[in-house]
Amino acid sequence: MDPIRFETHPDRYAHWKLSFDGPVAKLVMDVQEDRPLRPGYVLKLNSYDLGVDIELADAVQRIRFEHPEVRTVIVTSAKDRVFSAGANIHMLSSSTHAFKVNFCKYTNETRLSLEDASDKSGIRFIAACNGTTAGGGYELAIACDEIVLIDDGSSAVSLPEVPLLGVLPGTGGLTRVVDKRMVRRDRADIFCTLAEGMRGKRAVEWRLIDAVVPRSKFEDEVNKRAQAAAAKAPVQTGPGVALPALDPEVTADALRYRYVTLAFDRTKRQARITMHGPADAAPATAADLRKRGAEAWALRAWRELDHAICHLRFNEPNCGLVILETRGDADAVLAWDRALWELRDDWFAREILLFMARTLRRLDQTARSFFALAEPGSCFAGSLLELSLAADRTYALDDAKRPVRFHMSPLNGGALPMTHGPSRLAVRHLAAPDRVAEVLAGGPYDPEAAEQAGIVTFVADDIDYDDEVRVALEERASLSPDALTGMEASLRVAGPEAMASKVFGRLSAWQNWVFQRPNAVGDRGALKLYGRPERPSFDWGRT
Amino acid sequence: MDPIRFETHPDRYAHWKLSFDGPVAKLVMDVQEDRPLRPGYVLKLNSYDLGVDIELADAVQRIRFEHPEVRTVIVTSAKDRVFSAGANIHMLSSSTHAFKVNFCKYTNETRLSLEDASDKSGIRFIAACNGTTAGGGYELAIACDEIVLIDDGSSAVSLPEVPLLGVLPGTGGLTRVVDKRMVRRDRADIFCTLAEGMRGKRAVEWRLIDAVVPRSKFEDEVNKRAQAAAAKAPVQTGPGVALPALDPEVTADALRYRYVTLAFDRTKRQARITMHGPADAAPATAADLRKRGAEAWALRAWRELDHAICHLRFNEPNCGLVILETRGDADAVLAWDRALWELRDDWFAREILLFMARTLRRLDQTARSFFALAEPGSCFAGSLLELSLAADRTYALDDAKRPVRFHMSPLNGGALPMTHGPSRLAVRHLAAPDRVAEVLAGGPYDPEAAEQAGIVTFVADDIDYDDEVRVALEERASLSPDALTGMEASLRVAGPEAMASKVFGRLSAWQNWVFQRPNAVGDRGALKLYGRPERPSFDWGRT
Repeated sequence: MDPIRFETHPDRYAHWKLSFDGPVAKLVMDVQEDRPLRPGYVLKLNSYDLGVDIELADAVQRIRFEHPEVRTVIVTSAKDRVFSAGANIHMLSSSTHAFKVNFCKYTNETRLSLEDASDKSGIRFIAACNGTTAGGGYELAIACDEIVLIDDGSSAVSLPEVPLLGVLPGTGGLTRVVDKRMVRRDRADIFCTLAEGMRGKRAVEWRLIDAVVPRSKFEDEVNKRAQAAAAKAPVQTGPGVALPALDPEVTADALRYRYVTLAFDRTKRQARITMHGPADAAPATAADLRKRGAEAWALRAWRELDHAICHLRFNEPNCGLVILETRGDADAVLAWDRALWELRDDWFAREILLFMARTLRRLDQTARSFFALAEPGSCFAGSLLELSLAADRTYALDDAKRPVRFHMSPLNGGALPMTHGPSRLAVRHLAAPDRVAEVLAGGPYDPEAAEQAGIVTFVADDIDYDDEVRVALEERASLSPDALTGMEASLRVAGPEAMASKVFGRLSAWQNWVFQRPNAVGDRGALKLYGRPERPSFDWGRT
Repeated sequence: MDPIRFETHPDRYAHWKLSFDGPVAKLVMDVQEDRPLRPGYVLKLNSYDLGVDIELADAVQRIRFEHPEVRTVIVTSAKDRVFSAGANIHMLSSSTHAFKVNFCKYTNETRLSLEDASDKSGIRFIAACNGTTAGGGYELAIACDEIVLIDDGSSAVSLPEVPLLGVLPGTGGLTRVVDKRMVRRDRADIFCTLAEGMRGKRAVEWRLIDAVVPRSKFEDEVNKRAQAAAAKAPVQTGPGVALPALDPEVTADALRYRYVTLAFDRTKRQARITMHGPADAAPATAADLRKRGAEAWALRAWRELDHAICHLRFNEPNCGLVILETRGDADAVLAWDRALWELRDDWFAREILLFMARTLRRLDQTARSFFALAEPGSCFAGSLLELSLAADRTYALDDAKRPVRFHMSPLNGGALPMTHGPSRLAVRHLAAPDRVAEVLAGGPYDPEAAEQAGIVTFVADDIDYDDEVRVALEERASLSPDALTGMEASLRVAGPEAMASKVFGRLSAWQNWVFQRPNAVGDRGALKLYGRPERPSFDWGRT
């Protein structure tokens, strides 16, 4: 099969229409039934597949970078009486387990990117639900800040996954209903088992939606809310920064971007990500940064990394172990980090930082083992040091003749938080929180000092290093991929949970379980039989 | 198969020896190989099955009630060079999925009961690891407050589940390593993939254990620590309160205790728990309460409920829907609640409250749908009202001629917290936290007012009530049991997570997933093949 492509552009969108009117953008879902990502299913009723979500993720990203003047986004549908029917069932039921899980993870990340744009960039999202808003359609709506539902006597919001499909509303639905919308749990229980969903005054009272508006006044009300939200947000002016295609060079064994290389050794089931530091000097001013636009190292390199991670997840499922390497000049990275940190009140610098943070969270949430290798020529400094802090382990070579050093920058202090909230450095020092400020203020660290500082896991001299690393890589690649996935999902998220991490940790873990159960995916399972005349046949045993 | 029996007594323990020396108790694991709970496996090397854990749970419970003078518990083994090899692998690999999941849940609850005794009752647990401490053996050790490992040149602590069995250390292991012991996540990654485990100075440095002591000094060091811990704890004096067997009357369709009935309608896949309020007047003083001993309603009735829940989980897997009913005199319950609350500085009253709380958490963690029915004659007051607040839904009959009322007591204000920390009432009011104090201060509530107060989900008059409830019960019983389990596990735990809830929410959910995967349980899976000459054969695809 052709690899899934994650790059797109509004000019090529099949399923969304993106338009702008001053501070208000409109994102209209108009899924083309006959253009699924893979043949075999029809995208009826604004149901979506990964292709639809890749466009949505791209649109939200472009709004932030290319249209800084946008303060409110109306998310709506071009179909009459249908907002969205959610993830396409036939796509789901015909997909492999691994694809289902990765699809849900990606769509969860897209929903979180809307919330990140709202929380951190002040862009308010209004879901204008002009018709049936079911399943993943409602999960998209609750990722928005406000939900306005049309009152046409029939359109409802619903999460029919449990009653109709025997699976969970796994794109954040269950978690957001009780943790974000704060719907009372007993009401949520009713709502999540009610196939026909809810509408009208009761849906507002129960906090499932924010308003219900007659058809004749619907557009006006949505526009009024959009204008009101935009008026409340601080004005932000353009021009924006266009995001050109990355167009990596693709060979049989690698994707080569400008700053990032993703290479595969499929025999060993290994991938190797090499990320290079800046080729360009750090900007001195916001204007200078703006001039670099999308070619700025801090944007270009991290967009490349983000793309590489998506490619790896979907297109190279067997490469279970990923080596993380860095190359370049530490001072140049530190200069860039400091510049971004000093310019963080500028919208473009801020968006770059927020994007770096999302990319690193995408790395954290990737179900592969990551081993960082700190060898001569490496550049684990500041933002690039986060790759090591995100890794499951870091091996460092300690050779006086070819010194390896680790450098802190202001960005290691919380500017690039994990999904559950704390910085990666703080998570390393749960046992001694006071150490965090100390470590941040210190350095550069040699390998031994870095081990003590919580950055490096294992230090070896030049006699032992190669063997140690080789054995570690071989051992890791020999372990059960599933056990590693569960283990990494538990160990990486030390400390308190947040709503976003509950979506991945609690909800997705349960969904992955349900996605394995015969009651859902067996020959007589509810997901498998959906749309067919037969009734599912359940094993009634509760676990 | 005979039902699993949850009642036991130190006189009948097969696997543990419990002894007392003033404030120090000793709990010695000495598993009898040839006495498994079910035939088919041999409990070698102090490995455990549910039968072993039922005795451990009983012992910890009896220490708290029967031996209030105990301030420290030494947990150790009678076997030379072996502390415990953890859960028995052959038992696990030959069990059904549902049994594995419920076994892990029960053992997790037992570990949490040790931590509850430490946090809330000031009993310090010292794991005296006099030999190999592997897997569930180490998970038992990290549920203790201190871990002392013997230094005999070979004994190590280890979590070999991932490398040897392709499953997770699912009895809290992964979570406690990073969240309780606060082992650095990269070190935890090494530890959890190292079959041979770790010992010596490095194990102390990495926070995996607290001390490593040569064989010749081991017993002395453990005793010294036990005495030191006991000396630091406030003195508590007996006599204790003996816990007699509950001995419910068992018929084909019901278990009948004094205050609780657990009845089954297996055709409808329903169970019904009816809990009665006190027959005895509330105590006026601690001495009065002590005189009632284990016959006190607040202890007897809740022990019965706890036992009923365990029986339901293991022995009636197909009864997916549980009706919760209460009967009795609200004033009598409220008087008992107030008495316990006023006497809470007395150890016995405190232990009763803590036990009520654990029982309610056992209910929250039970993978069944709970519907509370508030009908004439019901008694949803104070502690019994928690049954309704724990339920997924509550249906109330509103009939002026036969009024139903809901009553608050001081115990609804946080004395009986959920696993993740907040009270059940607070979880109902996440959207308006100020309402909690208001609701607590108010009442009694009629059904409509109770609906507004977050207690009742659905109110119907006498014309509609029976039909509404019948249809709701039928609908619930028709849904996929797995989807309901995942849904309830998500909706019940609204709000922030705690370490204990991460064990069930994140870790157990992942473990349940792994327990379904061919890489673990398939014919060529690692768990299935353990102990046999063949090597497991993995599908290398990562999800």
